[in-house]
Amino acid sequence: MPGSTFGELFRVTNFGESHGPAIGCVIDGCPPGMALSEADIQPELDRRRPGTSRHVTQRNEADAVEILSGVYEGRTTGTPICLLIRNTDQRSKDYGNILDTFRPGHADYTYWRKYGLRDPRGGGRSSARLTAPTVAAGAVAKKWLAAQYGTTFTGWMSQLGDLPIPFEDEAQIPLNAFYAPNAGIVPQLEAYMDALRKDGDSCGARIEVRARSVPVGLGEPLYDKLDADIAYAMMGLNAVKGVEIGAGFASVAERGSVHGDALTPQGFAANRAGGVLGGISTGQEIVVSIAIKPTSSIRTARPSIDRALQPTEVQTFGRHDPCVGIRATPIAESLLALVLMDHALRHRAQCGDVRLDVPPIEGPV
Amino acid sequence: MPGSTFGELFRVTNFGESHGPAIGCVIDGCPPGMALSEADIQPELDRRRPGTSRHVTQRNEADAVEILSGVYEGRTTGTPICLLIRNTDQRSKDYGNILDTFRPGHADYTYWRKYGLRDPRGGGRSSARLTAPTVAAGAVAKKWLAAQYGTTFTGWMSQLGDLPIPFEDEAQIPLNAFYAPNAGIVPQLEAYMDALRKDGDSCGARIEVRARSVPVGLGEPLYDKLDADIAYAMMGLNAVKGVEIGAGFASVAERGSVHGDALTPQGFAANRAGGVLGGISTGQEIVVSIAIKPTSSIRTARPSIDRALQPTEVQTFGRHDPCVGIRATPIAESLLALVLMDHALRHRAQCGDVRLDVPPIEGPV
Amino acid sequence: MPGSTFGELFRVTNFGESHGPAIGCVIDGCPPGMALSEADIQPELDRRRPGTSRHVTQRNEADAVEILSGVYEGRTTGTPICLLIRNTDQRSKDYGNILDTFRPGHADYTYWRKYGLRDPRGGGRSSARLTAPTVAAGAVAKKWLAAQYGTTFTGWMSQLGDLPIPFEDEAQIPLNAFYAPNAGIVPQLEAYMDALRKDGDSCGARIEVRARSVPVGLGEPLYDKLDADIAYAMMGLNAVKGVEIGAGFASVAERGSVHGDALTPQGFAANRAGGVLGGISTGQEIVVSIAIKPTSSIRTARPSIDRALQPTEVQTFGRHDPCVGIRATPIAESLLALVLMDHALRHRAQCGDVRLDVPPIEGPV
Amino acid sequence: MPGSTFGELFRVTNFGESHGPAIGCVIDGCPPGMALSEADIQPELDRRRPGTSRHVTQRNEADAVEILSGVYEGRTTGTPICLLIRNTDQRSKDYGNILDTFRPGHADYTYWRKYGLRDPRGGGRSSARLTAPTVAAGAVAKKWLAAQYGTTFTGWMSQLGDLPIPFEDEAQIPLNAFYAPNAGIVPQLEAYMDALRKDGDSCGARIEVRARSVPVGLGEPLYDKLDADIAYAMMGLNAVKGVEIGAGFASVAERGSVHGDALTPQGFAANRAGGVLGGISTGQEIVVSIAIKPTSSIRTARPSIDRALQPTEVQTFGRHDPCVGIRATPIAESLLALVLMDHALRHRAQCGDVRLDVPPIEGPV
Repeated sequence: MPGSTFGELFRVTNFGESHGPAIGCVIDGCPPGMALSEADIQPELDRRRPGTSRHVTQRNEADAVEILSGVYEGRTTGTPICLLIRNTDQRSKDYGNILDTFRPGHADYTYWRKYGLRDPRGGGRSSARLTAPTVAAGAVAKKWLAAQYGTTFTGWMSQLGDLPIPFEDEAQIPLNAFYAPNAGIVPQLEAYMDALRKDGDSCGARIEVRARSVPVGLGEPLYDKLDADIAYAMMGLNAVKGVEIGAGFASVAERGSVHGDALTPQGFAANRAGGVLGGISTGQEIVVSIAIKPTSSIRTARPSIDRALQPTEVQTFGRHDPCVGIRATPIAESLLALVLMDHALRHRAQCGDVRLDVPPIEGPV
Repeated sequence: MPGSTFGELFRVTNFGESHGPAIGCVIDGCPPGMALSEADIQPELDRRRPGTSRHVTQRNEADAVEILSGVYEGRTTGTPICLLIRNTDQRSKDYGNILDTFRPGHADYTYWRKYGLRDPRGGGRSSARLTAPTVAAGAVAKKWLAAQYGTTFTGWMSQLGDLPIPFEDEAQIPLNAFYAPNAGIVPQLEAYMDALRKDGDSCGARIEVRARSVPVGLGEPLYDKLDADIAYAMMGLNAVKGVEIGAGFASVAERGSVHGDALTPQGFAANRAGGVLGGISTGQEIVVSIAIKPTSSIRTARPSIDRALQPTEVQTFGRHDPCVGIRATPIAESLLALVLMDHALRHRAQCGDVRLDVPPIEGPV
Repeated sequence: MPGSTFGELFRVTNFGESHGPAIGCVIDGCPPGMALSEADIQPELDRRRPGTSRHVTQRNEADAVEILSGVYEGRTTGTPICLLIRNTDQRSKDYGNILDTFRPGHADYTYWRKYGLRDPRGGGRSSARLTAPTVAAGAVAKKWLAAQYGTTFTGWMSQLGDLPIPFEDEAQIPLNAFYAPNAGIVPQLEAYMDALRKDGDSCGARIEVRARSVPVGLGEPLYDKLDADIAYAMMGLNAVKGVEIGAGFASVAERGSVHGDALTPQGFAANRAGGVLGGISTGQEIVVSIAIKPTSSIRTARPSIDRALQPTEVQTFGRHDPCVGIRATPIAESLLALVLMDHALRHRAQCGDVRLDVPPIEGPV
Repeated sequence: MPGSTFGELFRVTNFGESHGPAIGCVIDGCPPGMALSEADIQPELDRRRPGTSRHVTQRNEADAVEILSGVYEGRTTGTPICLLIRNTDQRSKDYGNILDTFRPGHADYTYWRKYGLRDPRGGGRSSARLTAPTVAAGAVAKKWLAAQYGTTFTGWMSQLGDLPIPFEDEAQIPLNAFYAPNAGIVPQLEAYMDALRKDGDSCGARIEVRARSVPVGLGEPLYDKLDADIAYAMMGLNAVKGVEIGAGFASVAERGSVHGDALTPQGFAANRAGGVLGGISTGQEIVVSIAIKPTSSIRTARPSIDRALQPTEVQTFGRHDPCVGIRATPIAESLLALVLMDHALRHRAQCGDVRLDVPPIEGPV
């Protein structure tokens, strides 16, 4: 399979390039009868949208979504939902200097080698702009999961470059440009970004994502485990270099007697598993953490080669996020929603609707 | 899809349970004409086999593989290859005490909730024993990749519990029970494991995997990126809680001017990317690191519940690996081989055979 | 999988409804580097377009296709190609009388029962209008197959209602509204259709499709045989009730000594197989014949029921093809092209590029 | 995808060759909790088994099936079910004379051209023997469908060579070697076969298959229609050259006013649709008819070529069915069961369990 489709039963097929006429996706497999309009999707796109603060790319895109199919009289019909987003603020000339050279750390080189040609305008297909259709599809999944199981999603930034962001208050997340769960640290984050921009450099970030009220039993052993598909989704997000579930890399140094979350009649006594055991959801919070590398398009000049493999220098102008991690939070939530949605449908295919006769066990996290 | 098939074009369908009559897999999509016999597969299975040192489970399985189909006169015919491994040393009675209780950290509970019933003998389908067919299929992929591109795979342990294992000498890896690239540390590792066994406890491990001589251009944007599929493969391995590609979580604190690997006419000047840019292989070494949690089956008694949700204690006897990470190295290599094999076939479907007209750029790692 | 995607490696995901804002498809997996513009696709759409003669629906749609992605500077980039066709001549009010009743022979009833709701405007998703994106995708496949192997496609009508159309001259096919390979019979066909329209009734048709210069070796045993996938494609076309390959139903009464096509050094001595043996292409012409039932939307009043399951009468106004078979010829060609394209890519994934070292055997048909 | 897997959610992966050590399949996706043992499967295999009358191949295979996985204490666990059938009566030497030549009408030539090599023993992978695993999997599907919806399957022969078999009495079907619903014609059929054998020739057959008590709403528009998948399944069966649903090719000459089955409060007034409208099941009987060509392995000498493309003669000894249609009836039933099973799971993934609040409409057929 060629790779632009996400999911098996809630299938999202993504298309478009950064500077083409439009981007979008087709969702096939959405259950019928759900109320759906652009107003359900737009707020999620707005969270991801460029140009909303001085810390992200200044490209000005409304990211206005249009539902082209699959909805009749305000309800999903069970047929494919095409979501279209027109590109409106392309400035391809800004990128002229990278037509024949390869940015270190960027997909320029590999696209050229794989396909023999590439669309260099704004990064073409490899641009993070292509996460917008993912977010749009994620909004549909979020709505269905919320209606069906009460599932909710929360993401935040836990580190910016070398600056850890202590978790203090979830309510703060939507109130600052960084999705930081900590109001006090925001001025520091802003100063950090301002210095970075002045340097013409970029930095990485660490993002946390959680899903709550997840049905027990989602995930397909042997290979398509829930955590395997979460790792696939997250590592597939632009710039991600690491994924952890629950205790993650910390579990290497733990002992089994400590790591295993005890079960009690009142629920699990802890959640070092991160909500997944044996690849199947436990009903607890899903706990995911991801590492995002620094943006590869920077204004600092760096050594590279051209298409004739001759040495050259490359320096990127155009409009870029100095830290792609800042806008990654809503995208990571969407990806987690898409994974859970797909596995919810897979579960009910094989096992029937989620049974509520066994009381779910949920404990402190 | 139900989840027991790995890959899209080199498809491995896994079947079996720990204490059933047999385990195995069907490989569909293997290119025709490749010399193949049990002798190509058995050595890889022997690397993963239980009972080879006092530090792993004492279950004694020959893991003798039988090719049931897809090979005629010593060559693959292009039709499905069924690989069968009979189970011979089941002792299901050892597990009697876990029939009605759930081991903390184990899949017992989630299997029961998902399917409404479970095969408790030796962990049934959730047992790490089911990685044997994966390793067998990986041996076929390794052989083809080696013949076609010269690709090779190396894995090693870089941390056991809280003990880091400094990389010293790759030649040492096959010479000790831990896959440690460091002869001097082996006595310490042995003492660590002996103490752990005495405590009736378990520990985690960190495993590194590398692939060399990987063709440029493997990986399918947007979603089925090479690193996304590697993360899926690795997180799907029993007990894995974290995956890193290249610089991994360290890239969070890096600046773009440092992280991006410069291109020179002689190749990349570094490999912080870990051999993947934009989800497509660069031709450099693929660099993967995984976190393995401590085994959940331990002799130490822990609080749990029974199927009536009443409080109880659970204590595991039977034969278990006190550190599943010890045998994880050959499995992780196999998984990486399966991902590369699948993407090699996907690449040539869309783009034709790997073109050699552009000299590959390979640099220091 | 939800069912709106055609193909495994050349994947066409179709979206839209008859009276929604737009219809279209996303093609994922097209090989990179092929010259492609709207001008390659539009002529095929024009062959299928409504309103081109008095014998087909009078709905006036330009069916102008727009390429939204996947093409850069006139060449395919290997990334998804989104093809969009805006609907412009919807007249949903014409269908008002079928909102609550079910046309005999139509999908009205089954859509309502499956999804619990349906888009009744112009048949919604079940309309033959949704074959336009299939034809657009087929044009891309035809171009690649022609460039790669010289493959060509020809279809024609061999029976209209109870009127057989003797094959006389392939050159006549594009010169009449019926795709009839016989100029002399056209006045008869026209009179037949005029009488039918006067009666407010509809009729069926039989369509032949051929592909020439097909590479040897396409098709995947065991299940995904080339003829199996052709049958899937053709039976999935609106109104098709029967599919034959080669001798088809006539082979029931044949003896093996007659049916088997002899091989000679100059090629096969006949083609009763229709170009497929054991599910794999022989290199001869692919020979397909399909039965199309009469249109179910007719002006004649018929007994039916309403959504309360009470008896009623249904009579269809609006604009309909009195014989959907008339426009089916280019669609059936496109479907055959899509099947061959997909299998060409599947073949080269597993077996590498089609080898030309063995001379293809092609004989009289 | 390589092609040996049937279905999307109830996935059957088939392996083996006619004269290899074993054949079999892995079923992934079977719902958990269903009682299952070899005794549920063996009777279906016995219906298809060779050597049961003088009119079929004299190869003597018990076709004893062994369940290797996926069942615990007599119930399906939801994990893959591996079904193994050992080959016991191979006589590969009988086929010696076809090693280097190609039987007219047989897959010998195309396998060789596709893969560059082939297993010639008993037809290798192309042998109708590989339908045994399909039948075994079909038995599992039949059991689940019967338990869930009361669905039943019936198949019979309606024509042998040029001898039509009038339908008289369904009860007769299991009482004769031909699956003929007509006791009086059996002597004629026997004489026909005896003459054919004496001639060293073979003949075709026409088989009917029906499914009753099919839930309304199965089938996935646009492409994966129920009838499209039935056509795929049937055309993929060895030797099939034509498939009809409902009125089939007869619908070409029908008028819309006659063809469309009227709906009444008591159900459909007829079933010319064959139980499918718009690709979705109506709840009526599914009506399928298939054409089977004459066996290509016959004792009569025929002109052919060898691997050097030089002219030669080929004559087949060994043990073959002079009419593969005789054993096709249980296979065709199994294929129909597999299609319905897969679509039942697909339906409940997207739309939830089949709703029984709307009374099914079933009418005379």
